[in-house]
Amino acid sequence: MGKLNWGIIGGGEGSQIGPAHRLAAGLDRAFDFVAGALDHRAEEGRAFGRRMGLAADRAYGDWREMLESERGRADRVDLVTVATPNATHFEITKAFLEGGFHVLVEKPMTMTVAEGEELVGLARETGRICAVNYGYSGYALVRQMRAMVAAGDLGRVRMVVAEFAHGHHADAGDADNPRVRWRYDPAQAGVSAQFADCGIHALHMASFVIGQEVERLSADTVSCIESRVLEDDAQVNLRFDGGAVGRLWTSSIALGRQHGLTLQVFGEKGGLRWAQEQPNQLYWMPLGGRLEVIERGGPGLSPEATRASRVTVGHAEGMPLAFGNIYADLAEAIRARAEGRAIDPAADLYPRAEDGLRSMAAVFAVAESGKAEGAWVEARPPMMR
Amino acid sequence: MGKLNWGIIGGGEGSQIGPAHRLAAGLDRAFDFVAGALDHRAEEGRAFGRRMGLAADRAYGDWREMLESERGRADRVDLVTVATPNATHFEITKAFLEGGFHVLVEKPMTMTVAEGEELVGLARETGRICAVNYGYSGYALVRQMRAMVAAGDLGRVRMVVAEFAHGHHADAGDADNPRVRWRYDPAQAGVSAQFADCGIHALHMASFVIGQEVERLSADTVSCIESRVLEDDAQVNLRFDGGAVGRLWTSSIALGRQHGLTLQVFGEKGGLRWAQEQPNQLYWMPLGGRLEVIERGGPGLSPEATRASRVTVGHAEGMPLAFGNIYADLAEAIRARAEGRAIDPAADLYPRAEDGLRSMAAVFAVAESGKAEGAWVEARPPMMR
Amino acid sequence: MGKLNWGIIGGGEGSQIGPAHRLAAGLDRAFDFVAGALDHRAEEGRAFGRRMGLAADRAYGDWREMLESERGRADRVDLVTVATPNATHFEITKAFLEGGFHVLVEKPMTMTVAEGEELVGLARETGRICAVNYGYSGYALVRQMRAMVAAGDLGRVRMVVAEFAHGHHADAGDADNPRVRWRYDPAQAGVSAQFADCGIHALHMASFVIGQEVERLSADTVSCIESRVLEDDAQVNLRFDGGAVGRLWTSSIALGRQHGLTLQVFGEKGGLRWAQEQPNQLYWMPLGGRLEVIERGGPGLSPEATRASRVTVGHAEGMPLAFGNIYADLAEAIRARAEGRAIDPAADLYPRAEDGLRSMAAVFAVAESGKAEGAWVEARPPMMR
Amino acid sequence: MGKLNWGIIGGGEGSQIGPAHRLAAGLDRAFDFVAGALDHRAEEGRAFGRRMGLAADRAYGDWREMLESERGRADRVDLVTVATPNATHFEITKAFLEGGFHVLVEKPMTMTVAEGEELVGLARETGRICAVNYGYSGYALVRQMRAMVAAGDLGRVRMVVAEFAHGHHADAGDADNPRVRWRYDPAQAGVSAQFADCGIHALHMASFVIGQEVERLSADTVSCIESRVLEDDAQVNLRFDGGAVGRLWTSSIALGRQHGLTLQVFGEKGGLRWAQEQPNQLYWMPLGGRLEVIERGGPGLSPEATRASRVTVGHAEGMPLAFGNIYADLAEAIRARAEGRAIDPAADLYPRAEDGLRSMAAVFAVAESGKAEGAWVEARPPMMR
Repeated sequence: MGKLNWGIIGGGEGSQIGPAHRLAAGLDRAFDFVAGALDHRAEEGRAFGRRMGLAADRAYGDWREMLESERGRADRVDLVTVATPNATHFEITKAFLEGGFHVLVEKPMTMTVAEGEELVGLARETGRICAVNYGYSGYALVRQMRAMVAAGDLGRVRMVVAEFAHGHHADAGDADNPRVRWRYDPAQAGVSAQFADCGIHALHMASFVIGQEVERLSADTVSCIESRVLEDDAQVNLRFDGGAVGRLWTSSIALGRQHGLTLQVFGEKGGLRWAQEQPNQLYWMPLGGRLEVIERGGPGLSPEATRASRVTVGHAEGMPLAFGNIYADLAEAIRARAEGRAIDPAADLYPRAEDGLRSMAAVFAVAESGKAEGAWVEARPPMMR
Repeated sequence: MGKLNWGIIGGGEGSQIGPAHRLAAGLDRAFDFVAGALDHRAEEGRAFGRRMGLAADRAYGDWREMLESERGRADRVDLVTVATPNATHFEITKAFLEGGFHVLVEKPMTMTVAEGEELVGLARETGRICAVNYGYSGYALVRQMRAMVAAGDLGRVRMVVAEFAHGHHADAGDADNPRVRWRYDPAQAGVSAQFADCGIHALHMASFVIGQEVERLSADTVSCIESRVLEDDAQVNLRFDGGAVGRLWTSSIALGRQHGLTLQVFGEKGGLRWAQEQPNQLYWMPLGGRLEVIERGGPGLSPEATRASRVTVGHAEGMPLAFGNIYADLAEAIRARAEGRAIDPAADLYPRAEDGLRSMAAVFAVAESGKAEGAWVEARPPMMR
Repeated sequence: MGKLNWGIIGGGEGSQIGPAHRLAAGLDRAFDFVAGALDHRAEEGRAFGRRMGLAADRAYGDWREMLESERGRADRVDLVTVATPNATHFEITKAFLEGGFHVLVEKPMTMTVAEGEELVGLARETGRICAVNYGYSGYALVRQMRAMVAAGDLGRVRMVVAEFAHGHHADAGDADNPRVRWRYDPAQAGVSAQFADCGIHALHMASFVIGQEVERLSADTVSCIESRVLEDDAQVNLRFDGGAVGRLWTSSIALGRQHGLTLQVFGEKGGLRWAQEQPNQLYWMPLGGRLEVIERGGPGLSPEATRASRVTVGHAEGMPLAFGNIYADLAEAIRARAEGRAIDPAADLYPRAEDGLRSMAAVFAVAESGKAEGAWVEARPPMMR
Repeated sequence: MGKLNWGIIGGGEGSQIGPAHRLAAGLDRAFDFVAGALDHRAEEGRAFGRRMGLAADRAYGDWREMLESERGRADRVDLVTVATPNATHFEITKAFLEGGFHVLVEKPMTMTVAEGEELVGLARETGRICAVNYGYSGYALVRQMRAMVAAGDLGRVRMVVAEFAHGHHADAGDADNPRVRWRYDPAQAGVSAQFADCGIHALHMASFVIGQEVERLSADTVSCIESRVLEDDAQVNLRFDGGAVGRLWTSSIALGRQHGLTLQVFGEKGGLRWAQEQPNQLYWMPLGGRLEVIERGGPGLSPEATRASRVTVGHAEGMPLAFGNIYADLAEAIRARAEGRAIDPAADLYPRAEDGLRSMAAVFAVAESGKAEGAWVEARPPMMR
């Protein structure tokens, strides 16, 4: 099988997410960028697509036009990324899955749990990949943590402590800043702001690493800046289906934190600690031993972590490469299908529609518990209870 | 006024707390160690006292004997430290206050809220100092944080995040280790283990720094090791009387953490971060600025922090000197009274009976909320509502 | 101008440097990988090239074949990377420059100073770009340091302290390991091992940041593992043409260091510190102020640093993106020439033949001084004295 | 044997070193402060001594008076600390040794090598202790490093890299600041400034840890601030008598460094790294293994490190306690002599006159080499060649 073709919807000029996807998809030449509907304004989208190197007939003005056209091509895109505003994720993803395409959709996958269940069902029916972009799970050492837990190095996991704290919305003077305001407005953002935006990354990572799914949760949500309707800070306590207890703190008013996504896992036989801002070191404490530093790229790592590393030990790798690992996983999955072979298990790690669905259920559970003074609520989607 | 005389009850041979108090009380020659009832076994206590340099007639076999004898001496001790098992704190502290002595009592000050209220009342009636040993509040940069909050550098405090996590009780094989087991046994430890042991340090520090007291709380308490009745991990959400929200996590099963007492404070105009294990640096993020490192001993610190520093910038100072600052505060308080002058406000920072009482109320509130699935409960002692 | 075409010589299957170049050249779709002579074994090179997606007629068996063929094509490669064994750099680079191609050559550019002078002359005569891959100079915060020095933030630079220490050759048992042994064998590696391999990266970075070139140096070179003829550790003292003093330590036996490339710059008005292993933070100490943390991607950075950043603040970026910035600079340089416009000054930062030449002169100077007990020697190439 | 009596010469009101010695000597009640000649101005010294709690007849106006008086007392001081200006160390130390006293003298022990040799000889003749205050060697983890090297954990030591860099003299505007200026004036400071002030601490630590003494050295000394005659920055390359190579950098213009005393030791079988500013963690890299964090106070430490620790693991300990360990060693040495028993080998670690002498020889060697363009010079004192 030759090169894979890739297209994207959204990520137009000036967006942050567009360049990140283009960079990540193109890493290692995994995918060729051949098609896109990059802007909701048709002409701007077409023009930007052509400037990005798309052929004129594949620089689309609209996702429907793209769907229609690509469906008929022999060299149709092998993967479509949906990076549009959140409220449109469901409709577009659904349409492309139904059109027979593999899809990678930005988080949150949908705006409701019901939509999430529909996409899960559709992915199963169509046999198409519906992946969700929890890109931090692409970090080599996050995958190393997962492998160590799975291998039993920690024994039974007792506790997982996750954080995602930043201070970029701490300025009360931003009340009218349009880049910030919409996030705290239920009409635009839904039932949750900070948890839906950042907390679910931390929650996905916790589940991904410990191999357990959240069942129940209790949330304390607050708006530190009074004009906000939705929360800018939340503490969520969790119970997972394998017996682990979880603690998750997320905040957007934590001045001094930049992008503080961290994970700690404590088991019977050892503890792990990792931080996104210094992602090339993992701290491992075996019971009765000394704290050890596990270096990305070093010897003795798991196959998952080794596959997710690109440069030699001691060289920093960062977020764009982690993000690229999600695309690399998808390329492997698509190739394995096309070639009728088993997927490399060290690459079979991309987040799926089920993860996107569980996140939506968690978002609604957090909102519900937050309104109910932290009452414990069901956190699983109906179809997974 | 000359040297101050000091005595201690408890802290006998082989204890950890005894050397710590002797070291701290003697720093800067603040107090002369002249009397003690060091062991509940009379002869052992007398013998050890004499080996520690006490005169034969002041190496007591029993705290009652010490109280009786010291009361009658012209050179009676100026301060008595109570470092006995927790269940005896109340009785001994009460007796010495009634005997006209100033007292520093180890935490927890009492076993019940009612006892705590009684000691607060007694301290007020007698006019004697009843201090409680929240020694971490003696760190220079903890006092710097308090001073910065008080000076308005952070604006209104929105959020305080405190942690006290260690992994020293993570070994399930310790179920029968007597040094560990009693801590999780209600018959010996009362209503709470990890929160009462470590969490209240973090809570005191949070209150001390932000200048607000906790009103209500919600706790999620768990026993990660099943044989334990009391909690080894707790997440507590807090509301303070000045409007701040609090998050407090404490754990004794957090493998890889040694003595992870940390504090983060987020206000309208800036954020602070400090960690006990590296106590000579304080991280300060002014809104819209860059993260700055405030060094203990450096220029521009508050009077409180400057007074609490002993060596020049760049030299590490640690816990024993922090602890010594509590004694230095008490020496200043005692001297100021004796000399009929105002106390140096930069030294007027030792924790008081009111703090010990509030801690007890918080311990009971955590236990209550923990049993009630995290229901929000009153956290103030009755006399402070 | 459309896409740029790129080819590479060397970097065959199993090499580390090949994937790094392919990744870096392809970032942001700066260059299309269209041609290569990837292996000195013709058939292996052709086959690997085709597997990498090259057209059959551009998967060459030999660099001479590639030169001959590309020279005649209308869609000839816009840039050729030379990533072959060190001893062949000169010959191949020379041939392609003479053939009218722009070249990026791996370090060391040549094996002798005379060869280096010839390439500098040739680049000037032909008007072709002859860039050298000091990839670490692509890091955003390295460029920020350079910009701050150039802007006078530090005042006159007094001192630059550079390190490049690792421990990957510390095992005496590696004496017969062919991946290690050749590096310390003069017949294969030339006059220097560790300084030529790693030290020159640190030296280039020092010069790049302070905007000064080394004039004289004194070196203490040692072979900690006795079987080695060439040095595995060197301390080099430096004098720069702008008056700065330099200290440079490089080692391959420094167990516990992974890839310890660090730079400290001390000026009249402030000091800077940066480390490659945590490249997203830069420490800045203004005279009389507090240590500040400058974050990659944060506000207020120089145009050079901003252009060299790809993802938002708080997300780690690593070596592959730094390396990609060298390619991005070259793409801009090539485009600006083609379009007859001035180059963006924030991109005009790629290392040049002159830098490669200076490095060679420094390598020979270190070897000479090392043999002469650290005598101070001239470090400039003859043409630059 | 009862309490030990201690006196000090120098360290008067307002000095930094006086409180540090009083605190350190009094730690654990090792010594009672009973006598002093605290100021060269007799009345000020007597008055300050009395304020510090000395008896009127032991608050001396002059060291000669103190020597005369103490010599005749049955309760004479067991140890005298000499903390006067550098130029007077020799004369006073000599007089007290000859008077039969044990002495701890501040560094530098003398101003010349010949004086140093005389004190070494005198200490040997009189059988009195002549200790020198290299206080950083009292840190528990510095002693742990020494013990690990001695136990062969590193195999043969190949390389030791020491730094002592700060930026407190980086302000050219301090040219007239009397607290700074004298240090760079040969008339007052002798032949060396920064190396004699800070570098010898780093050199002593290197020797102490690796158990080898320096034989030869080569120094590059510079005055970054032009008005200075003596060096404010030096790089010294070293050869030790056990075959180790040394690199030592010291600077007083390193803006951003506070008190950057660090040590790295690289051997055949492992590497160590330690930094004074975070003294409670030691980093250990076994060949072929992972970097481990050794915590002060943790399990499995050497007897030397355990004896030098006071509080439990995870609590910071700092410089004053390290300094106190020198006094604790001296107390043990004095007691062991008095009791006619062997000294505890875990306490037999205080720096001696021989160390003070070697430092002086190194200071003169650095000055000589610095003037001779880094020529290699003998670094041993004549009596040790």
